[in-house]
Amino acid sequence: MVTDRLSTTFAALADPTRRAILARLTQGEATVKELSAPFDMSGPAISKHLRVLENAGLISRGREAQWRPCRLEAAPLKEVAEFTDEYRRFWDESYARLDAYLQLLQDQTIPDPLPRDEEPHDGHDR
Amino acid sequence: MVTDRLSTTFAALADPTRRAILARLTQGEATVKELSAPFDMSGPAISKHLRVLENAGLISRGREAQWRPCRLEAAPLKEVAEFTDEYRRFWDESYARLDAYLQLLQDQTIPDPLPRDEEPHDGHDR
Repeated sequence: MVTDRLSTTFAALADPTRRAILARLTQGEATVKELSAPFDMSGPAISKHLRVLENAGLISRGREAQWRPCRLEAAPLKEVAEFTDEYRRFWDESYARLDAYLQLLQDQTIPDPLPRDEEPHDGHDR
Repeated sequence: MVTDRLSTTFAALADPTRRAILARLTQGEATVKELSAPFDMSGPAISKHLRVLENAGLISRGREAQWRPCRLEAAPLKEVAEFTDEYRRFWDESYARLDAYLQLLQDQTIPDPLPRDEEPHDGHDR
């Protein structure tokens, strides 16, 4: 089965180490050694994550055989953003509903039967 | 190992059937039967996808034991959008570089030594 591009991107992003690698690459190119420094992880384990990111087109690697610095490629993340845009009105609607509800509560302005600053101090533990 | 929330969301989105289910739910609530109709997939297979979506908080299900209609919950997609926002300037930069390059090509306007409309027709095959 051929995995579609967006599924490949999402699968690559479904790992905190891989997302941390992408975040590091926003600071500039980095070698495998530099990328593995913040993680308690073997070189081969990092290399495996890099292969997943490279297959998803989220990073590219230099040609220098020895260093092969990694570089962020953000284009697939634009596709992810475009995917979420289709759902924007649904989360906006959720907030709109919440706003309307809070406004309703405020408009009702039912007097609090026991305002906080008049709370009796009876000395008992609660 | 506890999987972080964003990883769970990305893993749930890394499947075209699950994304199609979410897209369907933008039209309104739907039962498992309604959701499985467009797919050549067994009820249990669809139910498994729905469990993944529900565990990721991307859908909620009604209480009615028999129907349990599914409803879209877009809040995790807002977190995905916020994640991609951190990378927006990188894809914008790619486009800015491309624009600058195209502008440079246009500005150079080096006269074509053999303009297209003055191309000689010598009758020979090329």
